[in-house]
Amino acid sequence: MNTMNKKIGIGLLGLGTVGTGVANIVFSSAGRHPLVSKINIKRIAVRDLQRKRSLEIDTSILTTDPFEVVKDPNVEVVVEVMGGIEPARSLIMLAIDLGKSVVTANKAVVARYGKEISDAANAAGVYVLIEAAVGGGIPIIEPLKQSLGGNKIKKVTGIINGTTNFILSQMTKEGANYQDVLNQAQELGYAEADPGADVNGHDAADKIAILSGLAFGGSIKRESIPTKGISNIENKEINYANQLGYELKLLAIAEHLENYSEIKETSLALRVEPTLVPNDHPLSTVNGVNNAILIEGDPIGEVMFYGPGAGAGPTASAVVADILNIAGIKLMQNSGAKSLDPLLSASSWRKCHLANPREISHKNYVRLITADAPGVIGSIGNIFGNHKVSIESIVQFDSNIEGAEIIVITHKVSKGQIIDSLLEIKKLSEVIQIAAHLSCL
Amino acid sequence: MNTMNKKIGIGLLGLGTVGTGVANIVFSSAGRHPLVSKINIKRIAVRDLQRKRSLEIDTSILTTDPFEVVKDPNVEVVVEVMGGIEPARSLIMLAIDLGKSVVTANKAVVARYGKEISDAANAAGVYVLIEAAVGGGIPIIEPLKQSLGGNKIKKVTGIINGTTNFILSQMTKEGANYQDVLNQAQELGYAEADPGADVNGHDAADKIAILSGLAFGGSIKRESIPTKGISNIENKEINYANQLGYELKLLAIAEHLENYSEIKETSLALRVEPTLVPNDHPLSTVNGVNNAILIEGDPIGEVMFYGPGAGAGPTASAVVADILNIAGIKLMQNSGAKSLDPLLSASSWRKCHLANPREISHKNYVRLITADAPGVIGSIGNIFGNHKVSIESIVQFDSNIEGAEIIVITHKVSKGQIIDSLLEIKKLSEVIQIAAHLSCL
Repeated sequence: MNTMNKKIGIGLLGLGTVGTGVANIVFSSAGRHPLVSKINIKRIAVRDLQRKRSLEIDTSILTTDPFEVVKDPNVEVVVEVMGGIEPARSLIMLAIDLGKSVVTANKAVVARYGKEISDAANAAGVYVLIEAAVGGGIPIIEPLKQSLGGNKIKKVTGIINGTTNFILSQMTKEGANYQDVLNQAQELGYAEADPGADVNGHDAADKIAILSGLAFGGSIKRESIPTKGISNIENKEINYANQLGYELKLLAIAEHLENYSEIKETSLALRVEPTLVPNDHPLSTVNGVNNAILIEGDPIGEVMFYGPGAGAGPTASAVVADILNIAGIKLMQNSGAKSLDPLLSASSWRKCHLANPREISHKNYVRLITADAPGVIGSIGNIFGNHKVSIESIVQFDSNIEGAEIIVITHKVSKGQIIDSLLEIKKLSEVIQIAAHLSCL
Repeated sequence: MNTMNKKIGIGLLGLGTVGTGVANIVFSSAGRHPLVSKINIKRIAVRDLQRKRSLEIDTSILTTDPFEVVKDPNVEVVVEVMGGIEPARSLIMLAIDLGKSVVTANKAVVARYGKEISDAANAAGVYVLIEAAVGGGIPIIEPLKQSLGGNKIKKVTGIINGTTNFILSQMTKEGANYQDVLNQAQELGYAEADPGADVNGHDAADKIAILSGLAFGGSIKRESIPTKGISNIENKEINYANQLGYELKLLAIAEHLENYSEIKETSLALRVEPTLVPNDHPLSTVNGVNNAILIEGDPIGEVMFYGPGAGAGPTASAVVADILNIAGIKLMQNSGAKSLDPLLSASSWRKCHLANPREISHKNYVRLITADAPGVIGSIGNIFGNHKVSIESIVQFDSNIEGAEIIVITHKVSKGQIIDSLLEIKKLSEVIQIAAHLSCL
């Protein structure tokens, strides 16, 4: 089992926001899954060797030639986070040819060359994992592959472009028009200087092509997906939709139209377009730059995956997940007969104990029944104050009981503080009963 | 690669609702992941051999002795869906001793004996997978193990008991009291005859013990988790909470209190209790028997997994996912040097094509600008009627433009019907413009 101590050599193609996020995780392995400490970044391809970086890094592993990184014999797994079609596609194919597994966040390449890439990977016996290509940090690719295989998938419906969801959310909230909100999104870094691929729906189309291929087991031509963006959306549509009980969202949908049967050729409906979503639908409350993917299948019913659809940290989380999956299998294969994939097998790596309950903090809801005497709220407030319990609201509600009913919501305080306060409040002559005490999130 | 055609022999312990759900999936593999067809149910332990079953099954594989199933040499993977502590625990341990991997939905056993079981499994080199033990069909166990390993997990917050969430949702919606709603839940089959483990929070405590162990890498004593149920909740609390902008939910929470560091011993706060959730929080809209688990980590931020928390179909979906994970690894290990885990590698198994766009159906939103002439709504309605487009609503909104603004929401109709209708409507002399046409979910 000694080989379990061997590290897995990684070559990083790109050290922009996502690449830096990946390196940050690998360089601070404490508190993460122990497998993170088995990852060793051996080589990094960058555009500019001289650029100042937030990351402390051994500059001798940097190179401006990404092909050199792929070919480096110390690099066992290639992590492509440079983006763009070329040379990214060629670098991925070269890595596969050299028998190296690949992790990529590149939805444009995977949506267009997914079949070519997976055919080559299967022939070479290597993995190409793409969790970061859809939904940023949200685990969606691997759950679709590994957790829903027993289902006949009927439909995948996603809010999978954070820029357009931010713009539509702001137009809804502020009544501002498309162009003003786009400018605001660009200032906040939520939209690129050239926002075309996002606002015209092409980014979402790349992603639904990928999800559809995994959900339904066969690829369709990326170029043939009917795609409408949001740049022509007027505030009027949003207002009227809201008045009729809908939210307007840019949805990407892939749907299986027929009953499943033994027939191997299947008809799918794919589309990307602004769509009215009823406001009791789980996707209607997905706002800002968040993404969500709803999957309908038989027999699971509906499951939804929700979270940050973009950003350096979440995307790096997904890239590292893929690296760990490959590292786990490599370590299993390199080791003895009875070795296990350390991700699938459950292992303890830390001693845990329960914290002292008095030290746990949260908000509180307290309902008090008191005599309807003047000054009772003041007495209660004083006791909370003495115990440094800060109050969010204290309200006397209409009540048909004798006396008065007072509801207190506290800010976040320790259980010790609230318990000591309530013990003292209970002793007040005006307080008849502490009728309820609940936690708040 | 011939061994890839070998089937994996399964022994099923229990043929109740979940066991029957698993068998239903395995016996109807068309349209599911091709790996499903590699699963072969070799032996099934039942309580009563004579019982009439909805399932057509070869009765010669049934037995009343579950130990016989575990020991059967044709059984490679043991699937425990019988529930209860004993003999389930002993059967799981026996399977491990015999070198067989186990899939179990048994949260009570895993929450109490998880460490003993995983230690034995790791020593024997077998897997014990438990996706169905928490969150019914929602993929949460494997995403936590496989997709979030790069993160320092800070907090896990879950609505993980469907019965209590149904009861609290109904109390909120209908203003009915606890006992009446519990009776209703029992009639609907959402609560058991003896609802104690659910309403007292013990089922949720089992599940948060399991999630905490996976999220933080170390186990805590199941019995020491502070647990409060919902049986004392009065409608008053729900009403006041709603008025203050909160929903009342039974939450299970596991939180890491300190900063992560190299220190191996760590302090956790766990609790199960009715908790006020602000109504802009993603967990506040999780209603009925649905479950959701929110995970906060660094660098991912917040991700949420949402879906059906119980039921035969969803739970069977999770059990089959685990069987497929083990089958995938077994097939990889049995095959040649370059073979891959068929779940991790992406493969096409079906030819797909895009459906004729005119045949795709959905609801529509149409905004028309018309002359303010009497009868225009009638003319429009007639044209939709002629094309068999059924109307959900047709509203004339106040508008500051010349003429009138009419919004039509259709029921679900094919794209062909709506396009043909709009072409004809455009020709009406009263219609100035079709100002917008959008899809609705």
